[in-house]
Amino acid sequence: MAEAKKLGGAGLRGQSAGETALCTVGKTGAGLTYRGYDIQELADNAQFEEVAYLLLYGKLPNQAELDAYKAKLKSLRGLPEALKTVLEQIPADAHPMDVMRTGCSMLGNLETEQDFSEQHDKIDRMLAVFPSIINYWYNFVQHGKRINTETDADSIGEHFLWTLHDKKPDPLHVSVMHASLILYAEHEFNASTFTARVCASTLSDIHSCVTGAIGSLRGPLHGGANEAAMAMIENWKSADEAEEQIMGMLARKDKIMGFGHAIYRESDPRNAIIKKWSKQLSEQVGDSVLYPVSERVEAVMWREKKLFCNADFFHASAYHFMGIPTELFTPIFVCSRVAGWTAHVMEQRANNRIIRPSADYTGPETAEWIPIEKRS
Amino acid sequence: MAEAKKLGGAGLRGQSAGETALCTVGKTGAGLTYRGYDIQELADNAQFEEVAYLLLYGKLPNQAELDAYKAKLKSLRGLPEALKTVLEQIPADAHPMDVMRTGCSMLGNLETEQDFSEQHDKIDRMLAVFPSIINYWYNFVQHGKRINTETDADSIGEHFLWTLHDKKPDPLHVSVMHASLILYAEHEFNASTFTARVCASTLSDIHSCVTGAIGSLRGPLHGGANEAAMAMIENWKSADEAEEQIMGMLARKDKIMGFGHAIYRESDPRNAIIKKWSKQLSEQVGDSVLYPVSERVEAVMWREKKLFCNADFFHASAYHFMGIPTELFTPIFVCSRVAGWTAHVMEQRANNRIIRPSADYTGPETAEWIPIEKRS
Repeated sequence: MAEAKKLGGAGLRGQSAGETALCTVGKTGAGLTYRGYDIQELADNAQFEEVAYLLLYGKLPNQAELDAYKAKLKSLRGLPEALKTVLEQIPADAHPMDVMRTGCSMLGNLETEQDFSEQHDKIDRMLAVFPSIINYWYNFVQHGKRINTETDADSIGEHFLWTLHDKKPDPLHVSVMHASLILYAEHEFNASTFTARVCASTLSDIHSCVTGAIGSLRGPLHGGANEAAMAMIENWKSADEAEEQIMGMLARKDKIMGFGHAIYRESDPRNAIIKKWSKQLSEQVGDSVLYPVSERVEAVMWREKKLFCNADFFHASAYHFMGIPTELFTPIFVCSRVAGWTAHVMEQRANNRIIRPSADYTGPETAEWIPIEKRS
Repeated sequence: MAEAKKLGGAGLRGQSAGETALCTVGKTGAGLTYRGYDIQELADNAQFEEVAYLLLYGKLPNQAELDAYKAKLKSLRGLPEALKTVLEQIPADAHPMDVMRTGCSMLGNLETEQDFSEQHDKIDRMLAVFPSIINYWYNFVQHGKRINTETDADSIGEHFLWTLHDKKPDPLHVSVMHASLILYAEHEFNASTFTARVCASTLSDIHSCVTGAIGSLRGPLHGGANEAAMAMIENWKSADEAEEQIMGMLARKDKIMGFGHAIYRESDPRNAIIKKWSKQLSEQVGDSVLYPVSERVEAVMWREKKLFCNADFFHASAYHFMGIPTELFTPIFVCSRVAGWTAHVMEQRANNRIIRPSADYTGPETAEWIPIEKRS
């Protein structure tokens, strides 16, 4: 074996692991584009389904294509009986990301991708049914209710809220969900997407790829920052209290979630978008605490540390204003990012070589076998 | 963002993606060591549980440690009722690797790793219960039988055969299983292990890491070569017919599974070991076809292409002689490799940085937003 090339930094940081035409992250220190489209234009103007279509089918759909796509997704929301039975076996105190992971894996048993020619149909099915999976389980274990997941919702975002609360949601909330799902849809070779690509590179099936990606997104260094931000800010009763507490956390060098980013250097372009929506929701519900608290935390973090909010920070308050339980924040991330993951899987399949790196060996050169009776 | 370093080859080939003290693959073009111990010495002298202990606990166990470890594993073979119910929901025509993936994921809901201090117990539980998972499902869907998975088997290999056939297995078969499980236990940064490490690098839980790894091993470029080899050789009635067919396949440039390797250049050190066991099993069952066919295929491939058998080729006949259905070959791989995967997860956790590479962007620099009514 040739000696493996040494790494510059741990975690493959700054190291190219392949090609993609899907996304640029932080090219200018701040920007985010999906297939060349600026994230702000997409979030301000598009429905999530248009962006999913862009990622998965390579172009923005025209009206007829979008209508057909949304009709297709709407037809795919029902849960097979066997999947419902599985979800009902999962206890109320399970981690909701474990529920997503298991729901996706079980779906792969019932509706296996037999051939890559089926990939688009399997992907669309996942996009359509993931909100049904998490909210069927959630309503069953929290309220003992077997909800009907075949809602009349016009969009995936509306379907999520509808299945969560088992009623038609407020139109403002549907708009926020479109923006939120667009912001989280894709982000280049992050750890969960890279997991999906490594799995895809063995030519495994699409459910294996997505199941693996969900497992990686579950990690606290990846998904879950918005949940952690919520757990922090919900403790504070006023902006002044928030400032005092944050100053104390900074003095103790506590980790403060929702700030800074591994790739972005100047700002996270997704923050301004979700912040605007959080403000509108705050006004709608007559909030006088959570949004001012969030704004103050943002100001203090910038003043003290020149750290900017990432996409996650104002998502916490925005989701909270829509009545979404904190533990379902990361599953929403899944309902969105599955578009990006699967677009990457298709891209990997189209020009594949198995991803099989080498490692620097740090163990003993040789070890001598000792019969068990002579071991210490 | 700084420009990402360009890759030498696709798939991170020859590129170091981290450090490990667990394994060397092909350092001399042929060798394989686990923590410095040569694979041949391990396979000839050890039980699988000694090797799992070596990988997971860092040293070969003495007799008291091995006895305690085996007693612990033996106590962990039972299936929770909820997991049985889930397995019974999976149809008979499901892919057995999807069953493993779902079984592992479901286990994570029922026995979640709450804290990394629990990692050893969660890992030992997976080692003990994976044979129960696959064979409970297999017996249920194939024979309508709910087997008792709490067998008296002395080892994981014996437990696999016992749960598969629902009876105490032949001692020779148990010896073969020890060797086989040892050969498959660990192999550095292969795609499934790398999947587990990427997942671990987000600080996700151990069931997510293993669930993702199973999904990657499912891919035909990774696990499954022994199944493909079996599907090929079982068609041939004699060594002469095998030679004729292989020559035809080579002339047509068909892919022949079970030969060559991405890393090894001269030989796969695992082949001689499993080949010897396959021969013994062949003599035991009075076979006069499958082993001669396999030997001839090996000879022809070397004569014509200088391609050597990898670990998978003689595993096909060996497993077949023990009455193992072909579709369960890769799940056995899981029952073994889970030791290596989880040793890598612990190693990643002990010195972690999130694995988040960059990518070479090949898409459009910019794209102009077009309102939907103006799109073609």
